[in-house]
Amino acid sequence: MNESWDFISKIIEENVMSIQTMKKHEVGEQCVNGVNVSQLENTVQAIENDPELARFQFRARNKWVNGGYNLTTVSDYDGARQQFSRKKPFILAADEPPMLLGGDQATNPVEQVLAALAGCLTTSLVYHAAANGVEVEAVNSNYEGDLDLRGFLNLEPNIRKGYEEIRVRFRVKSDASEAQLMEFMKHSPVYQILTSPTPVRVVLEKS
Amino acid sequence: MNESWDFISKIIEENVMSIQTMKKHEVGEQCVNGVNVSQLENTVQAIENDPELARFQFRARNKWVNGGYNLTTVSDYDGARQQFSRKKPFILAADEPPMLLGGDQATNPVEQVLAALAGCLTTSLVYHAAANGVEVEAVNSNYEGDLDLRGFLNLEPNIRKGYEEIRVRFRVKSDASEAQLMEFMKHSPVYQILTSPTPVRVVLEKS
Repeated sequence: MNESWDFISKIIEENVMSIQTMKKHEVGEQCVNGVNVSQLENTVQAIENDPELARFQFRARNKWVNGGYNLTTVSDYDGARQQFSRKKPFILAADEPPMLLGGDQATNPVEQVLAALAGCLTTSLVYHAAANGVEVEAVNSNYEGDLDLRGFLNLEPNIRKGYEEIRVRFRVKSDASEAQLMEFMKHSPVYQILTSPTPVRVVLEKS
Repeated sequence: MNESWDFISKIIEENVMSIQTMKKHEVGEQCVNGVNVSQLENTVQAIENDPELARFQFRARNKWVNGGYNLTTVSDYDGARQQFSRKKPFILAADEPPMLLGGDQATNPVEQVLAALAGCLTTSLVYHAAANGVEVEAVNSNYEGDLDLRGFLNLEPNIRKGYEEIRVRFRVKSDASEAQLMEFMKHSPVYQILTSPTPVRVVLEKS
């Protein structure tokens, strides 16, 4: 346990250094697409030796403010048998536009689903490309989600409350083939969270 | 068409006024939980008369910056046969923590899924409570998502890439029963997007 923690500590230290290096635009030869491939390989090796290191838990907490406005705080997470905390928590606001009776102070939750999908497909493409030594020069993507409000309003039980369909269009500058880039992208966790059922267990208590 | 647009314009105008009123803490008697219930009833009535008004499309676009860091822009959306643009686009950043080879400049996409779920469950509870005349005084909730990195890294084909499970714990201050509050919450679009498969069509072109 101590040994693996030492190893992980070293990974973290080296990553932080590699990020600092990245920021100075002095990307070393082990970096592809801004991803430290040496560290990625070390991580894969460490997990193959000790699969428990792969177990992560991400967390969030939310506080309702008023109407459609509420705030989510994200700070700590678990991974590789340790808990990590950000120096400063991230605060993510949600609101609804006026058409949906909100104050328009932030994106709404279904727009945030598109953003989470976008971030994850992009990172999955870039990381798996890096792991395969494939350089990527530019990645841009567009998202559209169709939603029929009759679902949420409970006016028609056969109409989905969530998106009926999400369409994604990527433009990628890279020497790799479109099929290969698509394969890299499809490792995305958020893509799978949306396209195959994710168990969500809800408990509610009155305070 | 013009008539329905006039109607929608009036709704928007009145909503903006009601938000301004809300902000001054001079909540009128038609507001419950900060939600303008009169407008909500008008919206439901309008949609029952003309179901096409219920069709919404939300959009986002993403640009990769470097490594696990990328930016999503959200501005316009369609609803009730019109396009709406925010005065200023919302920019949502994604990054990964050092443990996942990122620069930790923002929440990561799977944390953003928890935030989207949190915002949506909360707003669904608050809006449906308001529609049923149920006052809510406080809503707090916590989220945990379990993820095994071997899925994303493609080390074990039988391990999910996405969350294996998400656990949610709500604390709600309200006179309504727990069962009723739970029912309000379950109208959440994001809850359905996660728990039942959402079709995601991806097209990729090289630029």
